[in-house]
Amino acid sequence: MNKITPIETAMEDRMADAVRVLAMDAVEAANSGHPGAPMGLADVATVLFNRFLTVDPTAPGWPDRDRFVMSAGHGSMLVYAIHHLLGYDDMKMDQLRAFRQLGSRTAGHPEYGHAKGIETTTGPLGQGLATAVGMALAERMANARYGDDLASHWTYVLAGDGCLMEGISHEAIDMAGHLGLGRLILFWDDNRITIDGPTDLSTSTDQRARFAAAGWHVQAVDGHDKAAIAEAILAARADRRPSMIACRTEIGHGAPNKAGSHTVHGAPLGADEIAATRKALGWSLPAFEVDDAIYSAWHAVADRGRAAREAWAARLAGHPCRETFRAAHAAPDAATLDAALCAWKAQLSKEAPKVATRKASEMALEVVTECLPTAVGGSADLTGSNNTRTAAQRPVTRDDFSGSYIHYGIREHGMAAAMNGIALHGGFFPYGGTFLAFADYCRPAMRLSALMGVPVAYVMTHDSIGLGEDGPTHQPVETLASLRAMPNMTVIRPADAVETAEAWQIAATAARTPTVLCLSRQGLPTVRIEHSDANKTARGAYLLREPDGERDVTLIATGSEVELALRAAETLSAEGLTVAVVSAPSFELFAAQDADYRARTLGPAPRVGVEAAVRQGWDAMLRPDDAFIGMTSFGASAPAADLYRHFGITAEAVAAAARRLTETA
Amino acid sequence: MNKITPIETAMEDRMADAVRVLAMDAVEAANSGHPGAPMGLADVATVLFNRFLTVDPTAPGWPDRDRFVMSAGHGSMLVYAIHHLLGYDDMKMDQLRAFRQLGSRTAGHPEYGHAKGIETTTGPLGQGLATAVGMALAERMANARYGDDLASHWTYVLAGDGCLMEGISHEAIDMAGHLGLGRLILFWDDNRITIDGPTDLSTSTDQRARFAAAGWHVQAVDGHDKAAIAEAILAARADRRPSMIACRTEIGHGAPNKAGSHTVHGAPLGADEIAATRKALGWSLPAFEVDDAIYSAWHAVADRGRAAREAWAARLAGHPCRETFRAAHAAPDAATLDAALCAWKAQLSKEAPKVATRKASEMALEVVTECLPTAVGGSADLTGSNNTRTAAQRPVTRDDFSGSYIHYGIREHGMAAAMNGIALHGGFFPYGGTFLAFADYCRPAMRLSALMGVPVAYVMTHDSIGLGEDGPTHQPVETLASLRAMPNMTVIRPADAVETAEAWQIAATAARTPTVLCLSRQGLPTVRIEHSDANKTARGAYLLREPDGERDVTLIATGSEVELALRAAETLSAEGLTVAVVSAPSFELFAAQDADYRARTLGPAPRVGVEAAVRQGWDAMLRPDDAFIGMTSFGASAPAADLYRHFGITAEAVAAAARRLTETA
Repeated sequence: MNKITPIETAMEDRMADAVRVLAMDAVEAANSGHPGAPMGLADVATVLFNRFLTVDPTAPGWPDRDRFVMSAGHGSMLVYAIHHLLGYDDMKMDQLRAFRQLGSRTAGHPEYGHAKGIETTTGPLGQGLATAVGMALAERMANARYGDDLASHWTYVLAGDGCLMEGISHEAIDMAGHLGLGRLILFWDDNRITIDGPTDLSTSTDQRARFAAAGWHVQAVDGHDKAAIAEAILAARADRRPSMIACRTEIGHGAPNKAGSHTVHGAPLGADEIAATRKALGWSLPAFEVDDAIYSAWHAVADRGRAAREAWAARLAGHPCRETFRAAHAAPDAATLDAALCAWKAQLSKEAPKVATRKASEMALEVVTECLPTAVGGSADLTGSNNTRTAAQRPVTRDDFSGSYIHYGIREHGMAAAMNGIALHGGFFPYGGTFLAFADYCRPAMRLSALMGVPVAYVMTHDSIGLGEDGPTHQPVETLASLRAMPNMTVIRPADAVETAEAWQIAATAARTPTVLCLSRQGLPTVRIEHSDANKTARGAYLLREPDGERDVTLIATGSEVELALRAAETLSAEGLTVAVVSAPSFELFAAQDADYRARTLGPAPRVGVEAAVRQGWDAMLRPDDAFIGMTSFGASAPAADLYRHFGITAEAVAAAARRLTETA
Repeated sequence: MNKITPIETAMEDRMADAVRVLAMDAVEAANSGHPGAPMGLADVATVLFNRFLTVDPTAPGWPDRDRFVMSAGHGSMLVYAIHHLLGYDDMKMDQLRAFRQLGSRTAGHPEYGHAKGIETTTGPLGQGLATAVGMALAERMANARYGDDLASHWTYVLAGDGCLMEGISHEAIDMAGHLGLGRLILFWDDNRITIDGPTDLSTSTDQRARFAAAGWHVQAVDGHDKAAIAEAILAARADRRPSMIACRTEIGHGAPNKAGSHTVHGAPLGADEIAATRKALGWSLPAFEVDDAIYSAWHAVADRGRAAREAWAARLAGHPCRETFRAAHAAPDAATLDAALCAWKAQLSKEAPKVATRKASEMALEVVTECLPTAVGGSADLTGSNNTRTAAQRPVTRDDFSGSYIHYGIREHGMAAAMNGIALHGGFFPYGGTFLAFADYCRPAMRLSALMGVPVAYVMTHDSIGLGEDGPTHQPVETLASLRAMPNMTVIRPADAVETAEAWQIAATAARTPTVLCLSRQGLPTVRIEHSDANKTARGAYLLREPDGERDVTLIATGSEVELALRAAETLSAEGLTVAVVSAPSFELFAAQDADYRARTLGPAPRVGVEAAVRQGWDAMLRPDDAFIGMTSFGASAPAADLYRHFGITAEAVAAAARRLTETA
């Protein structure tokens, strides 16, 4: 497939020119966008698609397709132009005409779920590359489970200087090199231009030496020499290491006066330069028209992909793994999980253990991973602290991908992006751990989980000053609020082992929402001593202690502070007050309940909120005259009990606040 | 200084053993902490301090001291032990006994400002290294301005595997290599152990090749061979490139049974192993006692530092630059800045330009940088978009550090950490730009700005869906809330050029608080058409439109949405309503005002909040019955005006919400 005739070579040049012209014309029509990267990368991408890449536009989600990730997401028109030419049915010419307009599929950056065949959302630099590492890892894991006949594909990434300057690239490249992900091939768009000007304004790294240091196979080619590109891809595929091909390109290649300059990076070429480009390329058709012969050549690529997919489907139909394979790629078996977790909750309510919720999470994971063989755990080098590894989980290694536990290393950002990639690849439910304070380290990838609607689970332990001596660098105080602020992210801070089990049920069955489990370092008593099959955590907040008669005060708490609210309630009850306690493990899930449920739960009486974190976000549940017991500053280094006293987050403080409210009410 | 006699060698061994023993004893007393790193690094650190490092415990802030950064911050006891032995007057033995206890100076991780001589807060991995790059850059910039006699020192960093696996290390290492920061020397604690176990669980990068690829001078030594360590430091200092010395160490070196294992990383040794270590080291004294001879040897190091500092002070006293130097290291000249900005504001109010606040920021920077020669700008490769470079600023390059503009490259995280380092170094006021959505990329370093109280300024443009076509990956909707949640961070979203000038005044004169300026891409009209010398932005929120008579409704808005509130007010006034408009550029500054001012500003009438972002955080100003016009989801890719209409953030929507409230009130 890689060797082509002179006639085919001439046609391949036209195929690439079509990408160039569509890209520059769409940017011009939008009067916004980035022509430079698509024009510079058109030759690399055309050779890749024409001679190697296997996708089927009629079945964009086919599990064994090759993955193509445009990590330099601002070059989105490259993707849209190619998808149009391949014949994706949602990428007609009207979409290219409507590039970057409201309601079009041709968003400014490629967005997963927005148009068929977009494997992941890119634009925030480095994310595509790091997500692709997760995809390539998932491919190897699937291969280990199902064999070459069902899972044997390639992951290709186009990345620019920006992707390779971002820190996340280091984490991704190291991880890929360490795991020996030989089916990952990265093309570096070595155009020596960034937005500010030539790359030598800000970098002088020898990228080839850098990739080699991380265990990659490295080559360099002229990014406009199609034969050389094809040879390099062949050599990359033959090598057992992940491959980086440095493609020396000219940004905006084809534009006679502007190519090679940073002016072509992120602005339309303008009518004059567009005319000059048409002339230089010998392209006579007007904007948004393409020769039938060129369409035919691109459609042949799609036909090859369809044939491959049909052959694969036939193999699947007769494969002994077919049921397991299909189950892994379908929604999780919620009924089995529900039954298992209900039994587990019943046992917990009976035994009422006092355990840290991070430990309770490990216990729940024993149940969850038993029911969900697709679960793939991991931690950013805090396995024993995050309690993310179950007894049965074996590590994934470069020599054996059949395990289900990943040592992500001290790479929170790379981990989160890889989890996105594993989930996007399909067939797996990834979860991974770090300290909650270090959510900041992976926040850009978490944001993409939420934006794409990828149901991964973040296991974030040591969730407050309760972690104690490690001090304020490790103590989240604003992190809960910062994560709750993010659209489409379910943040759950369970109060005990029962709520933790319920949190895992939510995370493991979520369809389009990532979940953050915020878990304590310190031991917590079981507060849900009355068993219910119903998942109360799924309501977001619920009455944990419901008094008879009209309430004098409602105490609302999350996680480790629920215990304090209950103790305060006991004190206040003894003083004759009627006190309700609401456990509020998830603000987002509570906000999604109907108004009547919310009003009944919170009640009309004065309210005291309690959480060892900042107040922001609580005001949605607290009225101006209500009280809040929490943090107003960063934490400190000391044993946890001392810190709770020092910062005034105690049952006594809760009771005192409640008394003040009831006296003035 | 580097060549020592056999007798001195024997004493140097004892000096290092003292560090080991103090570290293990303090961790044991705390029953918490990390003995492994201090014991493993004791030899490297002792050679460095004993033979090379120049600090003066009696003047810890002396500008020309060498900087020592313990990037592997969990090894804090190494620093505390050395500071105790050197004779820092706030690090008596009682502090070591109180390691990790409430109120002690010996926090779990080294905290800037918490004890003398702590150059930066470390613990979140990689931050120390990246901050040190900023310090080393500041040293070169100071050297270019003041010459060798006043600014000529070294920056030393101890970093572990965690620091080098984190993505930020890539950004920092590349930046240092590119800028040729030859006075930066990094010791890699190559102990082959992470928390999860041996490093080969998660990494196989050739670190030496990696640093070489980034333009560093690289050596490798036995980290327990003191003569070899000294030779390596000499060679590192002789080379013009930044240097990395790979120190092959044994974690917990000295502990006969536990050294070399991950069990010694983060847990006390236990009484038996401590006794065995004492025996193995021939250390007979009980816990928290050190031989006078060892103290004397360490005090000699301090004496050498004091002599160097006194010589430096004498040079300063007679130096032609002394006034400039002192001014640069003192608080900024607020009066001059105030006068210049008042004149600028008066001109703006008169001319009432319609400009994007990012452009207004550039205009204000022309005034600010003229008044503050210490200002050092930069951008993470978005200079033309962030408008961070003034006409007079020349770039800092490896050949000429006399400029005041830094091309940070596509490295938001490295930029933020470097800004911290430049500010901590002293003598400069760093500011740097990126898109607001990419605050997530540098959030861990921003958190350290806030935690340390370092007055840097983040210039974050394209602050809402108003950026338009680039789409949801680039559109902050939750970012404002996430930054407002952070303690000690002033977030300002100015409405026009006048508020932007006031925001810069706040940022440039802040003593202990970093500032984030959130600036629009799109043009905004001047809303402050009546000039006031007073900095109204400093009140956080103020009445921009104050009607006569009792208000029917108060509209509260920030940034680009103030214009919408004003237009809605006009409409409503024409309908006969009495409408106040509050501009609320900074929630933190408003919360710091007295209750009376806050109540007067917000007023008792129904309120409508308007911001093209999520509601979280607004509830502190809005009561349950008030209204909010903003975002509830991620954005989309389209021209800005289309997006405002699509998401219902318009003057009409504000007016409609106000009408509903006044009708029901």
